[in-house]
Amino acid sequence: MSGSVYGNIFRISTWGESHGKGIGVVVDGCPAGLTLNEEIIQDYLDRRKPGQTKYATPRKESDSVEILSGVFEQKTTGAPISMVVMNTNQQSADYSEIAGYYRPGHADYTFDQKYGFRDYRGGGRSSGRETIGRVAAGAVAVSILKQLGVDVCAYTRSIGSVSIEYKNCDRKNILLSPMAMPDLKASLKAEHYLDQKMQEQDSAGGVIECIITGLPAGIGEPVFEKLDANLAKAVLSMGAIKGIEFGSGFLAAEMSGGEHNDNFRYDNDGNVTKLTNHAGGILGGMSDGSEIIFRAAVKPTPSISKTQRTINKTGENIDINVKGRHDPIIVPRAVVVVEAMTALTLVDMLFMSMTSRMDNLVHFFHK
Amino acid sequence: MSGSVYGNIFRISTWGESHGKGIGVVVDGCPAGLTLNEEIIQDYLDRRKPGQTKYATPRKESDSVEILSGVFEQKTTGAPISMVVMNTNQQSADYSEIAGYYRPGHADYTFDQKYGFRDYRGGGRSSGRETIGRVAAGAVAVSILKQLGVDVCAYTRSIGSVSIEYKNCDRKNILLSPMAMPDLKASLKAEHYLDQKMQEQDSAGGVIECIITGLPAGIGEPVFEKLDANLAKAVLSMGAIKGIEFGSGFLAAEMSGGEHNDNFRYDNDGNVTKLTNHAGGILGGMSDGSEIIFRAAVKPTPSISKTQRTINKTGENIDINVKGRHDPIIVPRAVVVVEAMTALTLVDMLFMSMTSRMDNLVHFFHK
Amino acid sequence: MSGSVYGNIFRISTWGESHGKGIGVVVDGCPAGLTLNEEIIQDYLDRRKPGQTKYATPRKESDSVEILSGVFEQKTTGAPISMVVMNTNQQSADYSEIAGYYRPGHADYTFDQKYGFRDYRGGGRSSGRETIGRVAAGAVAVSILKQLGVDVCAYTRSIGSVSIEYKNCDRKNILLSPMAMPDLKASLKAEHYLDQKMQEQDSAGGVIECIITGLPAGIGEPVFEKLDANLAKAVLSMGAIKGIEFGSGFLAAEMSGGEHNDNFRYDNDGNVTKLTNHAGGILGGMSDGSEIIFRAAVKPTPSISKTQRTINKTGENIDINVKGRHDPIIVPRAVVVVEAMTALTLVDMLFMSMTSRMDNLVHFFHK
Amino acid sequence: MSGSVYGNIFRISTWGESHGKGIGVVVDGCPAGLTLNEEIIQDYLDRRKPGQTKYATPRKESDSVEILSGVFEQKTTGAPISMVVMNTNQQSADYSEIAGYYRPGHADYTFDQKYGFRDYRGGGRSSGRETIGRVAAGAVAVSILKQLGVDVCAYTRSIGSVSIEYKNCDRKNILLSPMAMPDLKASLKAEHYLDQKMQEQDSAGGVIECIITGLPAGIGEPVFEKLDANLAKAVLSMGAIKGIEFGSGFLAAEMSGGEHNDNFRYDNDGNVTKLTNHAGGILGGMSDGSEIIFRAAVKPTPSISKTQRTINKTGENIDINVKGRHDPIIVPRAVVVVEAMTALTLVDMLFMSMTSRMDNLVHFFHK
Repeated sequence: MSGSVYGNIFRISTWGESHGKGIGVVVDGCPAGLTLNEEIIQDYLDRRKPGQTKYATPRKESDSVEILSGVFEQKTTGAPISMVVMNTNQQSADYSEIAGYYRPGHADYTFDQKYGFRDYRGGGRSSGRETIGRVAAGAVAVSILKQLGVDVCAYTRSIGSVSIEYKNCDRKNILLSPMAMPDLKASLKAEHYLDQKMQEQDSAGGVIECIITGLPAGIGEPVFEKLDANLAKAVLSMGAIKGIEFGSGFLAAEMSGGEHNDNFRYDNDGNVTKLTNHAGGILGGMSDGSEIIFRAAVKPTPSISKTQRTINKTGENIDINVKGRHDPIIVPRAVVVVEAMTALTLVDMLFMSMTSRMDNLVHFFHK
Repeated sequence: MSGSVYGNIFRISTWGESHGKGIGVVVDGCPAGLTLNEEIIQDYLDRRKPGQTKYATPRKESDSVEILSGVFEQKTTGAPISMVVMNTNQQSADYSEIAGYYRPGHADYTFDQKYGFRDYRGGGRSSGRETIGRVAAGAVAVSILKQLGVDVCAYTRSIGSVSIEYKNCDRKNILLSPMAMPDLKASLKAEHYLDQKMQEQDSAGGVIECIITGLPAGIGEPVFEKLDANLAKAVLSMGAIKGIEFGSGFLAAEMSGGEHNDNFRYDNDGNVTKLTNHAGGILGGMSDGSEIIFRAAVKPTPSISKTQRTINKTGENIDINVKGRHDPIIVPRAVVVVEAMTALTLVDMLFMSMTSRMDNLVHFFHK
Repeated sequence: MSGSVYGNIFRISTWGESHGKGIGVVVDGCPAGLTLNEEIIQDYLDRRKPGQTKYATPRKESDSVEILSGVFEQKTTGAPISMVVMNTNQQSADYSEIAGYYRPGHADYTFDQKYGFRDYRGGGRSSGRETIGRVAAGAVAVSILKQLGVDVCAYTRSIGSVSIEYKNCDRKNILLSPMAMPDLKASLKAEHYLDQKMQEQDSAGGVIECIITGLPAGIGEPVFEKLDANLAKAVLSMGAIKGIEFGSGFLAAEMSGGEHNDNFRYDNDGNVTKLTNHAGGILGGMSDGSEIIFRAAVKPTPSISKTQRTINKTGENIDINVKGRHDPIIVPRAVVVVEAMTALTLVDMLFMSMTSRMDNLVHFFHK
Repeated sequence: MSGSVYGNIFRISTWGESHGKGIGVVVDGCPAGLTLNEEIIQDYLDRRKPGQTKYATPRKESDSVEILSGVFEQKTTGAPISMVVMNTNQQSADYSEIAGYYRPGHADYTFDQKYGFRDYRGGGRSSGRETIGRVAAGAVAVSILKQLGVDVCAYTRSIGSVSIEYKNCDRKNILLSPMAMPDLKASLKAEHYLDQKMQEQDSAGGVIECIITGLPAGIGEPVFEKLDANLAKAVLSMGAIKGIEFGSGFLAAEMSGGEHNDNFRYDNDGNVTKLTNHAGGILGGMSDGSEIIFRAAVKPTPSISKTQRTINKTGENIDINVKGRHDPIIVPRAVVVVEAMTALTLVDMLFMSMTSRMDNLVHFFHK
C-alpha cells in the first residue's frame, strides 16, 4: 500500500515523480453529466504553476494537462477520468549529487529506510510536483461543488511573522498577490520579509486559512468520519503541513465553555444563526450550516542553499549546500492544493451523507 | 455510512449510546496468539472511568468490560474480538428537557439536521461514553504494540492557562495527577484554576501532548496515507478536539528553513541521530526513527450550568441552564483516548508497511 | 484482517463462535428513520433456527436476538445497530476429541495452518452459527429494501438428484416445506432422498436459487463493482458454497449468441421488455430492470458419521467417525442466508448508485 | 463510485474507453525492488492482443504499453506504477449507428439507464479493450507471485460443445492453440465448430479453467474475505462471465458427503496430502496447500451479424444487423484476463494474510 489512493466514494489515484515521464491522476466516481474540459482543469492547475514570480522556482514548465478518458463531448460519462501532465523540463543531472546523502528536512532518509533505495531525482514522489495530480482532480471536485452551491476559498494568512486578520474571501486580491494574501499591503510586507530570507540563503513558512461556504448542515459522520477529522487528514497529507486547527483552534484550549460555546439564535427570517463561530462551523463532526474555517501551518521550505550538517550513505558526517532551483516559500503555491484537498474531501463527504435518512432514500428511488 | 468503523487492516467497529443498553466494539484483524483477557482491557478502560475525582462527573459506573468472542484460553484466535460494557447507571429522565432545544457547543442541532431527529438521551452517540469502545479496542492495540517494542504516552500539557514544559513521559506522575499532568506542581495549579471555573459555573479546555517511542523508521505511506495525516484524523475524530500539531507545529510557520531543518549526524556508535526534532519525528509522512510528538487542542466542556442563549425546536429564542452531571473538564479523561486512537492508528500503519519491500516479502513467505 | 467486515457504505461487522458466549453483528450505515425492533429481526432469524425438523441438528437453541444500540422508540437513529444472540446450549465436551485431528471437508486444517492453532469447539468461526450475524443484519437490509420496493426470494432448487423447475417465488410453500422447496411433491421426494442418506450415515448437498424483483435498471457499477461480481462474492463468502451462476449460467457457454442474446421489445404500454432472460437480469454488470436470477451450489454437509480417513496432529494417519449433532443437509437452512447476503449486497449497491448522475445530485441537495 | 478500483492493499485503478485516447491503469501498493520493464508487461499483454487469428477481430492494434512512473532503473520504487496503451486504430464512424438503439446482449441499455447517456463508441467502458488495464496490472502481479513461488495458469476448457478433460497446465500447447486449448486435437475440433458459427453469422461461448499452484496453506480470510469469494468477484467482474465453480463445483450439489469430502493422508515424507481434491484446494475459504481449481462460464459474444430484434431510443421496435469487426468468440482472449484477475487477487490476499499471527509479526519487525 503506497497510499496514493484518496477518497471512498469519490476516489482519486495519483501517480508520477518530479523527474519521471509525467504526473497524473485517475478520478473514479465522478457523476455523469458534469461539464468538463481541459480548459477548466488547466485554469485551476495554473494557480500552482512554478515560474510565475521570483519567489517560486524559476523552472519553466508548461504543466499542460490532457484528459485521456471519462469525458465525451465535454461531459463526464461516469467512467474514470484520467488526466496527465507530461514532464518537459527535467534536468536529472541537477540531482545526481543528492543520491548519496540525506537532505535535512526532506524525506530522503525515510524513503531509503522504507523502500531500501529511492528515486533520488528531485524528490521523486515527495516532490511538490506530486500535487499536480491532486490539483487536477481537485478541479473536478470544485466543478461538482459549484453545481451543489458549495465554495472553497483558501489564502495565505501569514508568512513568517507577517500576518493578516481574517477577512472574507477576496478572490480578486488573492490572485493578484504573489503571496496569495488578500490584504495587498501585508502581501508587500511579506515580499520584503521573503527578500530578506532569500538574501540569507534561507526560506520561510506560513499559515494558510481556508473557508467553506454553502455547505448544508449535517455533512460529516458523527464518529470516526467526522468532517473535521477528514479535512485534517486531507490537509496533513500534503507535504510540509505541520498542523491544523478549526475555528478558534488552539486558542479554544484557553477559553472557558461560556466563552467558546456559540449561542444559537433565530434571525428575523426564522433562520438559525450562531452569535459567534468559535467552533469553525462544525459541531460533533458535522457541519452546522455556518462558515467552516480552518488554518494549516506550513513549514519553511527545507531546500536552502545555506550550509547544513548531515550524513551520507557511506557513514560519514558531512556539510552540504543544496544546489538547484528551489522555492524560498511554498505557501502561496500550496494555497490551491489546500483548496483542492478540501474540495475532494467535501465531495466524498457529501456523497457519504446521502444515505443518512430513510425518507430521502425513498424519495430518491421512487422519484 | 455512519462512520463508526475505523482502520483498514486492523479495523474496529464501535457502537452504543450513553443511555442505551451498553457500549461496545468489535476488533477485526487482531493477529492470533496475542495474550488477552478482561483484566488487560479493564485496566486500560479504568483510566477513562468517571467518578474518580471531583473534576469528573460524579456518576458511579462500574464500566465493567466483557469479552464475548475472539479469545480462547487467554489467547486471541484471529477471530473478531467483541467487547461490551453494559450501561448500568442511566437516568434518562435527566435528559428529557433537552429534547426540545439545542445546547450550544453540542451536536444536538447537527444531529437533528442530519438525521431528522435524535436520541436525545445524554448525547446519544456523541456522548463521551462513545469513547469506551475506542479505549477497549485501544487496549488491544497497545498490547500488540508492546510486543513490537512501540510505546505511546499521552498526558495533559496544559489546562486553560496552566501549562507545563515538555518532559519525558513520566507515567507514574501522569497516573498520580488528577489532571494527568506529570508535573505535579502544575497539576495543583490546574486544580485551582478548575476550582475557579466550577465556581463560575463554567468549564475549561486544554492541550494533550502525545509521544511515540520505539517506532521503526519508514512507517507511514508517502502520499495520502502519511503517518501524520492518519494520526490527525484519528485524534480529530474524537469529540471536542479542535486542532493538532506535530513537532514545532504552528511555530514552524514562523521559523526559517535553517532553523527548522533537523540536521542529521551519526553518533559515536554509528547510529543515525538528529540534532533537533522540530519535525516531530516524521519526514515526508514517514517516521524517521526518532521520537514522534504531537499536541491536540481540547475545547472547554460545552455543558455548563451558566445561563446560555439558544433556540428551541418550536421556533423560539430561549435562555437555558443545562442541568445534569457534567465534567468541568474532559482533558484528563481524554488523555487515554488520545493514546488509544494513536495506538489503533499505529497498528494499522505498521501492518500497511509490511508490503513495502519485495525482499521482505520473499523472506516472509519463504521462511 | 480477519475479514469479518462486509460492505462499503452499508457495512456490517460480525463476530462470535459457535461455542463462545454469543454471536452478533454491528450494522454501520443504516439510514435513520427505519422502523425496527427485535420482532422483525427474530422473525427473519427463525428461518435459520435449528431443531425444527428431523433434517436439522436436534440442538435446541432459542437463538433469541437482542438489539443493544441504534434504535430509539422503534426507529433506527443512524447510529450503529448492535445485535446479539447469546449462546445458551453449548456442550464443548462434544468437541474435545476433534481438537487433535483434522475433519475432512472442514476448515480444521486450514485454520491451524493460518493461525497456528484453533478454537476447536464446534468449528469456531467456521461454524454455521456464524451466519446468525449475517441473517440478523440481513433482516435490516430486507427492511430497507422493502421500503424501496425491492424483493429478494430464495428457495431450494435441488437436493442431491431431486430438482424442481424454476417457478415464481411461492413464499407460502417455501416456508411450508422442510426442504424450502416450493414444489411440495418434489419436497417430499427430497425428504425420502435424505432419509436414505441418513440411513447411510451420509449427507447431501443441493442448489439454491434466488430471484430479485423490483430492482431499478442501472444498479451495479460497470467495471470491478459489477452487480453479479458482488453477488458472487456475497454468496461464495458463505461456507459450503462451491459455485454460482447467473441466468443461463454454465449453459450459456454452450449456446450461440443468437440463442443467448435477449432481444428487446416495447410492450403495448411502451415499457421496455426482453423476450427472454438468459442474462438473468444483468447486462454489463448492471441490472436491466427485469428479474435477476442466480443459483448457488451447496456441497454436502462435511460432518458425517461414516468412517473417514484423516490425519492427526501427532503425525499419524487415522480413521475417524465424527460424533455430535449435525445436519444431514444444510441447504434448507442456508436459503435464508443466501437471501440475507443478497439483501446486504443490494442495499450497498443501491447506495453506491446514488452518485452516478449529476442531475440527481443537484436535485438531491437542492431539494 | 464507478468501481474502477480493485484490491485493498495491492490496488489498481483502471481507465479508458475503446475509442478514447487510450487505456491505462495505475498500480498502487507494488513493493519496491521488483524487476519491471515494458517488455515484461508487453509480453503478457500480447496474449490478449486482437488480430492474431481469424477467430479474433481483424483490427490491427499495436497495443504498445508505456510505463510512466513507479519504475527507476528497471526496479519498482514503491510508488504507483502508471501504465498506458494509447489507442491507435479507432474508427468511431463504425459505431455512430448504434448510438440510437440498444444491442441485445450488450450493456447499451443499462449504461443509458444508469448514466442518462453513453459514450457509444465501441462499447465505451464495457468494451473488451477495458481489460488492457487489468492485464497490464496483472503482469505486475504475476511478477510478484513468481518471486513468491506461486503460479497461475488458465486455459480454454470448452468452446460450445467441444470440451477437454482437465489436464495439468501445458503452457506450450496453450500458447500454440489459437483456442488456448492445451489438447491440440480438441483445439482443431473447436476451430471447426467456430467456423460453422461464423458461417451462420453467429458466435460461441465456452468455459475457462484456472489452476493455481504453489500457494501456501492458510491464504484467504475465514468469513467474508474467503479466497474463493474474492476469486469469484474477480472473475465475475469481467464482462461476459456468467458463472464460476470451484473444484467439483455444481456437481458437488449431487454428491454425498462421503463422496465429496477429501480425506487427508500423510505421504511417505510426512507431508500432508489429500486423496482427492473435490474442494478445489480451498477449505473454509482458505487455501489448503493443494492445487486450486476453478472454472468460469463465458457467454457467446453478443455482437453477431445475424438479424436481431431490439428497440431504439425513439420508442420503436426495430430489426438490426450489427456491423463492425467482432470476435466470434472471446474465450481464448479472455484466458489471460482470468489469469490476470486471479493474480491480482492472490497478491492482495497474500498481503492480507501477513498479519494473521503474532509470532510472525514479532519476527518481521524485530528482524
